[in-house]
Amino acid sequence: QRCGFPEVVFCEGKTAAAIADIFRVLIAQKQDCFGTRLSADKAESLLEWFPEAQHNGVARTIRIPLPDLPEPTGNVVVITAGTGDRPVAEEAVETARWMGCNVRLIVDIGVAGPHRLLQEKQNFVGADAVVVAAGMEGALPSVVGGHVACPVIAVPTSIGYGASFGGLAALLGMVNSCAANVTVVNIDAGFKGGYLAGLIARQSAPRNVTS
Amino acid sequence: QRCGFPEVVFCEGKTAAAIADIFRVLIAQKQDCFGTRLSADKAESLLEWFPEAQHNGVARTIRIPLPDLPEPTGNVVVITAGTGDRPVAEEAVETARWMGCNVRLIVDIGVAGPHRLLQEKQNFVGADAVVVAAGMEGALPSVVGGHVACPVIAVPTSIGYGASFGGLAALLGMVNSCAANVTVVNIDAGFKGGYLAGLIARQSAPRNVTS
Amino acid sequence: QRCGFPEVVFCEGKTAAAIADIFRVLIAQKQDCFGTRLSADKAESLLEWFPEAQHNGVARTIRIPLPDLPEPTGNVVVITAGTGDRPVAEEAVETARWMGCNVRLIVDIGVAGPHRLLQEKQNFVGADAVVVAAGMEGALPSVVGGHVACPVIAVPTSIGYGASFGGLAALLGMVNSCAANVTVVNIDAGFKGGYLAGLIARQSAPRNVTS
Amino acid sequence: QRCGFPEVVFCEGKTAAAIADIFRVLIAQKQDCFGTRLSADKAESLLEWFPEAQHNGVARTIRIPLPDLPEPTGNVVVITAGTGDRPVAEEAVETARWMGCNVRLIVDIGVAGPHRLLQEKQNFVGADAVVVAAGMEGALPSVVGGHVACPVIAVPTSIGYGASFGGLAALLGMVNSCAANVTVVNIDAGFKGGYLAGLIARQSAPRNVTS
Amino acid sequence: QRCGFPEVVFCEGKTAAAIADIFRVLIAQKQDCFGTRLSADKAESLLEWFPEAQHNGVARTIRIPLPDLPEPTGNVVVITAGTGDRPVAEEAVETARWMGCNVRLIVDIGVAGPHRLLQEKQNFVGADAVVVAAGMEGALPSVVGGHVACPVIAVPTSIGYGASFGGLAALLGMVNSCAANVTVVNIDAGFKGGYLAGLIARQSAPRNVTS
Amino acid sequence: QRCGFPEVVFCEGKTAAAIADIFRVLIAQKQDCFGTRLSADKAESLLEWFPEAQHNGVARTIRIPLPDLPEPTGNVVVITAGTGDRPVAEEAVETARWMGCNVRLIVDIGVAGPHRLLQEKQNFVGADAVVVAAGMEGALPSVVGGHVACPVIAVPTSIGYGASFGGLAALLGMVNSCAANVTVVNIDAGFKGGYLAGLIARQSAPRNVTS
Amino acid sequence: QRCGFPEVVFCEGKTAAAIADIFRVLIAQKQDCFGTRLSADKAESLLEWFPEAQHNGVARTIRIPLPDLPEPTGNVVVITAGTGDRPVAEEAVETARWMGCNVRLIVDIGVAGPHRLLQEKQNFVGADAVVVAAGMEGALPSVVGGHVACPVIAVPTSIGYGASFGGLAALLGMVNSCAANVTVVNIDAGFKGGYLAGLIARQSAPRNVTS
Amino acid sequence: QRCGFPEVVFCEGKTAAAIADIFRVLIAQKQDCFGTRLSADKAESLLEWFPEAQHNGVARTIRIPLPDLPEPTGNVVVITAGTGDRPVAEEAVETARWMGCNVRLIVDIGVAGPHRLLQEKQNFVGADAVVVAAGMEGALPSVVGGHVACPVIAVPTSIGYGASFGGLAALLGMVNSCAANVTVVNIDAGFKGGYLAGLIARQSAPRNVTS
Ligand SMILES: Nc1ncnc2c1ncn2[C@@H]1O[C@H](COP(=O)(O)O)[C@@H](O)[C@H]1O
Ligand SMILES: Nc1ncnc2c1ncn2[C@@H]1O[C@H](COP(=O)(O)O)[C@@H](O)[C@H]1O
Ligand SMILES: Nc1ncnc2c1ncn2[C@@H]1O[C@H](COP(=O)(O)O)[C@@H](O)[C@H]1O
Ligand SMILES: Nc1ncnc2c1ncn2[C@@H]1O[C@H](COP(=O)(O)O)[C@@H](O)[C@H]1O
Ligand SMILES: [Mg+2]
Ligand SMILES: [Mg+2]
Ligand SMILES: [Mg+2]
Ligand SMILES: [Mg+2]
Ligand SMILES: [Mg+2]
Ligand SMILES: [Mg+2]
Ligand SMILES: [Mg+2]
Ligand SMILES: [Mg+2]
Repeated sequence: QRCGFPEVVFCEGKTAAAIADIFRVLIAQKQDCFGTRLSADKAESLLEWFPEAQHNGVARTIRIPLPDLPEPTGNVVVITAGTGDRPVAEEAVETARWMGCNVRLIVDIGVAGPHRLLQEKQNFVGADAVVVAAGMEGALPSVVGGHVACPVIAVPTSIGYGASFGGLAALLGMVNSCAANVTVVNIDAGFKGGYLAGLIARQSAPRNVTS
Repeated sequence: QRCGFPEVVFCEGKTAAAIADIFRVLIAQKQDCFGTRLSADKAESLLEWFPEAQHNGVARTIRIPLPDLPEPTGNVVVITAGTGDRPVAEEAVETARWMGCNVRLIVDIGVAGPHRLLQEKQNFVGADAVVVAAGMEGALPSVVGGHVACPVIAVPTSIGYGASFGGLAALLGMVNSCAANVTVVNIDAGFKGGYLAGLIARQSAPRNVTS
Repeated sequence: QRCGFPEVVFCEGKTAAAIADIFRVLIAQKQDCFGTRLSADKAESLLEWFPEAQHNGVARTIRIPLPDLPEPTGNVVVITAGTGDRPVAEEAVETARWMGCNVRLIVDIGVAGPHRLLQEKQNFVGADAVVVAAGMEGALPSVVGGHVACPVIAVPTSIGYGASFGGLAALLGMVNSCAANVTVVNIDAGFKGGYLAGLIARQSAPRNVTS
Repeated sequence: QRCGFPEVVFCEGKTAAAIADIFRVLIAQKQDCFGTRLSADKAESLLEWFPEAQHNGVARTIRIPLPDLPEPTGNVVVITAGTGDRPVAEEAVETARWMGCNVRLIVDIGVAGPHRLLQEKQNFVGADAVVVAAGMEGALPSVVGGHVACPVIAVPTSIGYGASFGGLAALLGMVNSCAANVTVVNIDAGFKGGYLAGLIARQSAPRNVTS
Repeated sequence: QRCGFPEVVFCEGKTAAAIADIFRVLIAQKQDCFGTRLSADKAESLLEWFPEAQHNGVARTIRIPLPDLPEPTGNVVVITAGTGDRPVAEEAVETARWMGCNVRLIVDIGVAGPHRLLQEKQNFVGADAVVVAAGMEGALPSVVGGHVACPVIAVPTSIGYGASFGGLAALLGMVNSCAANVTVVNIDAGFKGGYLAGLIARQSAPRNVTS
Repeated sequence: QRCGFPEVVFCEGKTAAAIADIFRVLIAQKQDCFGTRLSADKAESLLEWFPEAQHNGVARTIRIPLPDLPEPTGNVVVITAGTGDRPVAEEAVETARWMGCNVRLIVDIGVAGPHRLLQEKQNFVGADAVVVAAGMEGALPSVVGGHVACPVIAVPTSIGYGASFGGLAALLGMVNSCAANVTVVNIDAGFKGGYLAGLIARQSAPRNVTS
Repeated sequence: QRCGFPEVVFCEGKTAAAIADIFRVLIAQKQDCFGTRLSADKAESLLEWFPEAQHNGVARTIRIPLPDLPEPTGNVVVITAGTGDRPVAEEAVETARWMGCNVRLIVDIGVAGPHRLLQEKQNFVGADAVVVAAGMEGALPSVVGGHVACPVIAVPTSIGYGASFGGLAALLGMVNSCAANVTVVNIDAGFKGGYLAGLIARQSAPRNVTS
Repeated sequence: QRCGFPEVVFCEGKTAAAIADIFRVLIAQKQDCFGTRLSADKAESLLEWFPEAQHNGVARTIRIPLPDLPEPTGNVVVITAGTGDRPVAEEAVETARWMGCNVRLIVDIGVAGPHRLLQEKQNFVGADAVVVAAGMEGALPSVVGGHVACPVIAVPTSIGYGASFGGLAALLGMVNSCAANVTVVNIDAGFKGGYLAGLIARQSAPRNVTS
């Protein structure tokens, strides 16, 4: 049980039955089951077997939460540059929620429309950690990084065409960000983005309580 | 005499004497001499031989303007993300001036300091063409492109370290810009950026006159 | 309403019904609807619902023009190197037309057949802006750039095989063009090529009127 | 004053005199001056003018701390794979110290010597954030990530030869880390690694106090 | 008959009938038939025709062993980082077995879970040669290399996503391994990994006998 | 004596004395000595020792021709895009001359100045083989290939800046040439370009004699 | 009619009917029709309409030869490293035959089996031009180049897996060949390989006649 | 003391005095001192202090052997393609000798001169392990691999120009070798090549004794 969280099930390459078996073991251990990269047809089977499961079709995640979860703690905001980045962003949202954080999702405030970002600023500026999912040129994390004082986890997405090279252009852009508070995870790694933001927000949470 | 402008002298790889010889021919043809990529020591020799020449040490350019130049026409703004991008930007400035345009230079309004850009917005929003020189992640042209209605010529610079790969990260970022009015020239190609902006601004100029 | 043009609808990833909803809002706002990256089957549905729509199957665009459009203004020429580059070129054509420009399309005058280019020279030499779509080695924009005095927007295409690497070879070739008036957009970015040419041609148009 | 910290001076490309001028302004503003990428000869001049300055020759940093600094808070550990990674690691150390954190440095526990890492485990396992600087194959952050529950900031270094390609191999390795708590900054970006770890540790600090 | 082993049949691109023809010739020559990259449907046909054949569906191999094989000699261990690397690892296992070696397979002891590796150490530390198949960041061969005194053949796999670039990140990581006893073969080259380990183990075997 | 020609001496990394020793052996064997990649200072020594030697400082070659050479045979033309490509082109010229061919050099007819190429067409159109040395975007071989019926050997040069990546852009452009008669050698490989053109021209020569 | 040969029809992206139309025009002009990249189903239609056509299903070519073709002249040999390279090699064979040359095909003499190559040496050593198609590491052209005195046209193929990167490894290997008589065309460019070899062999042919 | 050998000193970045200190410790521990990547001037100092040391200036290694070394055991052959690859090859030679093996060096039998390789075949065909150092296209290991039954350790070198990209072309070629017994280490990694060959030859040695 690494890092204080029950293991996450990576569903790609496992049958619905195999996933169900793992879930039953985890439930017996009183763990909060969480699965990612789940296809629609496997989700259908799992929802039949576990009617209490929560399925997010955009994020491609499933969760069977424990009955008496503590109040969420720590504040994560997940932002996307475009609508195409939404699946990656939602995976980050679900991950950070499963880690016990308050999460807000803000979509489609990419750099080419500067007024949208300023309108939303009040909604992300006080977060403990911000996740920014962006494809194409991947410029949004740098812009967001200039507006907040907390760490920004940049998630390059494979959204784009031509010279985006499956997210490589966005990855390079984000790694070269001139904003000192921006750090980067793998292309399309919504889970990792949410996990790191969740870790940071949880560590940060008691501060809010005591100050 | 391609494109209606006297030929520009690319000084790299030519001796001061060879440059002077070309300048004397151009002067005899009553052309407005312009040289780029000029080292400091060659500039010294040329200034002795042509005391009327205008040397820009940061841009590494030299110019021997004709005595009775027409009023400048068309408005170009050149913007840099950081101070390190200045030599490339100044080369663009000198090029667009030599083409007969009004040129304004705005430095160091890179994406990590959003207030700086908004302060300067009034100074670039009405241009006929904007040149943006930026290194590292090359995000600034996308941001500027969202604020103006005219074409934006993005010039990636080799300023950066690590995964900037000599300007490749900035080039890829700019080519993938999600702003529809952004187009790109070669890394460190200040001359080309200024040339294209100058072409566009000159074509656009009569509009200002007649409207 | 950025840059004075109604927003373009990027149809990839949207259902026909969703596109229709956006179009109805734009029509109510008296805007000139324009959609790109539209598949054949969605086009069929939209043409049923909007019989007045103009569909270009090669360009994969759709347009519902306003009833009383002003006369087109400014001259754009779009050129292709081969026949395979045509879909990208047509997208540029439709975009520049929608922006209110006169547009001419010249196909298949690639560099390996020099007489074809010289025959057509009279048809592109007076343009306000030229778009050149080319794949493989991407040499044509440099050649065209040597024949015209206006800006040339080079659009690398993914047409090719082997070491064309999905348009990367063409992109690199165009970025390194030794013609000073050539600038580059993303691989297969016909929309962007047409948009920039349209911007430039519209800015340039009054000149034709007054001179 | 973004992020609650006085601005850092990037000394590369600035003269000693220019740096001194900035420092005098910052001192007048009662800020804790910090400079990075400082060459040995400039350091000598600055130490003459500011005898109270603290210079770290390996990190290439300088600092003029305020007289009454609060107790450090939050715990950062900086780890290196080899001895060659030390300059990058020391830059991270100095940055996190300047941000007001407790910092410990552990060198040369790279993956080829597994016992060294286990010996040191007790010294890094309780940190609020860990920075790992590694070149060559960049495997160490993954290994460390498996031992700790906090965020790990991986800093690829340009140390290596042959196919390390100036740190690219290490960067790719770290971005692909299968440890969920590993995130990455630019090659040789010791400052950024220390800055992010410092941000996280400061946010986390009150937890230690209250628990 | 290069290297003292009957030729291996690479089944991709050959029909079941064509493979059967080659096998019949090899059987007539009293050789130990071995085929790799065999699809499930071809395997079915071959098993009908050669009921004595041994098919490994995960490895995608088939073998028709000679009746009186000598005792296996030399010890090879094949290790995987994750479960996704198993097909590549099993191909290595089957190859080394066919070469006449004792082979043990250990799966899923990747770098993020350090206790798993230590638990298994006793099972691989005495091998004559170790094969390590790993995708993503490819860090496991370096870690294993630090625990054993024999050669380690690293096989990068194409398992991963985003910036793993089809195994390139793992390949680069392994080539840059700082463990002196690690050498590398092609991405997904389970056959080659098993072949080299088999060669080394066979050469090493008499040592065990005589010492 | 591979391919019917005395071995060429690659002078880089050999002392003047070592080169002289090889030359003396070749002279004793009545061979036509030829050295490439010769620095200026070594050339000086060799010219003292072999006053009859022919040194080309731009090509960086040296030759000690045999006294009674046969008439040159076969026609090679070497073309450059810019003046910077001249050293590579001259190396090709000297190589093809040493192989016994008639060689003509035409410089600076790059694609941006189309009239220059047409003026020179009569001087290259009848060659048995054409070598084209070009840097930057490397478009000239395609253009020349459209004007001639013989093979065109394209030599990419490392001349350029920014995204020319040391000749990679030119190499990719030339490999993707849509002219069917263009083939490519290594970056800056003037020797190889001249050698292949010489081989082809020599094979072709008798045709001229008999027709 | 560039280069003295009727135009080749590139069949990919054209319907069978469209190809037939072009063929009818060419037949009326008394030209020797040749089509490449022809799929099996289009071939079937064309063979119905032109029963005299010669279809090579491996090469994916079709030809409708003129009734009274002259005797073939000039000798081309096409060699493959493995069996997978055969389609590319056959395209070269058909192209050189259509150009009027004698062509011999030698398959599967790749570098790992040195005796095969030596056995066949007598069959390729006297050619006027040799085409070598090879994938994977692309080493065969260098080896062949060491055995012959004529030009060798290397055609990298996309055959391979892992780090062959679709033929890039083979392309780089061939461009770096240390054999002076090796030159390179695009990946999978069998047509181009055959075309260049055909050009060279035809130019060389009279020599055989007169000597 | 990993792998049964005293630690090797990597001399780059250490002063002569620092190296001497390490040597004195090792001598006191009765270890066989070995240093690599040693510059000429540091070698001079060390030879003064340790007159019994053996310095190889081409390999850039130094060794202070123990007085009573056992007879060498196991046979390693090191081969180079060209003379430029010699420093890398000599580093491999010295490393394998220090490991207690018999080592033979064969230089300059690269693929373009096939007779040289066949002449030397008798001298490498019986080795326990072969190291092949080659730059440029890196084809030699594949060729050697076809002649021997033992493992071949391929060491790509950075020797080359143009598209050799500092050894990347050779590395890719070697990784894609179609010879099943070829494995690869890092570019210029003579130490690693010699180390692996030494490991294998030592493991194999008793076989020679007993058979
Ligand atoms: N070593 C460093 N690496 C990257 N960025 C740095 C470094 N040191 C300072 N910076 C950034 O550079 C900015 C100062 O740049 P300047 O205005 O040129 O002194 C600071 O605000 C930091 O964000
Ligand atoms: N899975 C594999 N990966 C790479 N090479 C293989 C594999 N299986 C067989 N080979 C090689 O391919 C050769 C047989 O190819 P083929 O003659 O096409 O059946 C054998 O001699 C092996 O060296
Ligand atoms: N297989 C091929 N590979 C590359 N180029 C080809 C091939 N076949 C034909 N071509 C070229 O494509 C041209 C015809 O293209 P198209 O006009 O599209 O039929 C010919 O003139 C040839 O130069
Ligand atoms: N030439 C070399 N190339 C790569 N690694 C080396 C080389 N020489 C020594 N090493 C490794 O570097 C380690 C010693 O590094 P150091 O402690 O810095 O002297 C040794 O254990 C070797 O594994
Ligand atoms: Mg984006
Ligand atoms: Mg920037
Ligand atoms: Mg093209
Ligand atoms: Mg490391
Ligand atoms: Mg792995
Ligand atoms: Mg050029
Ligand atoms: Mg091959
Ligand atoms: Mg070589």
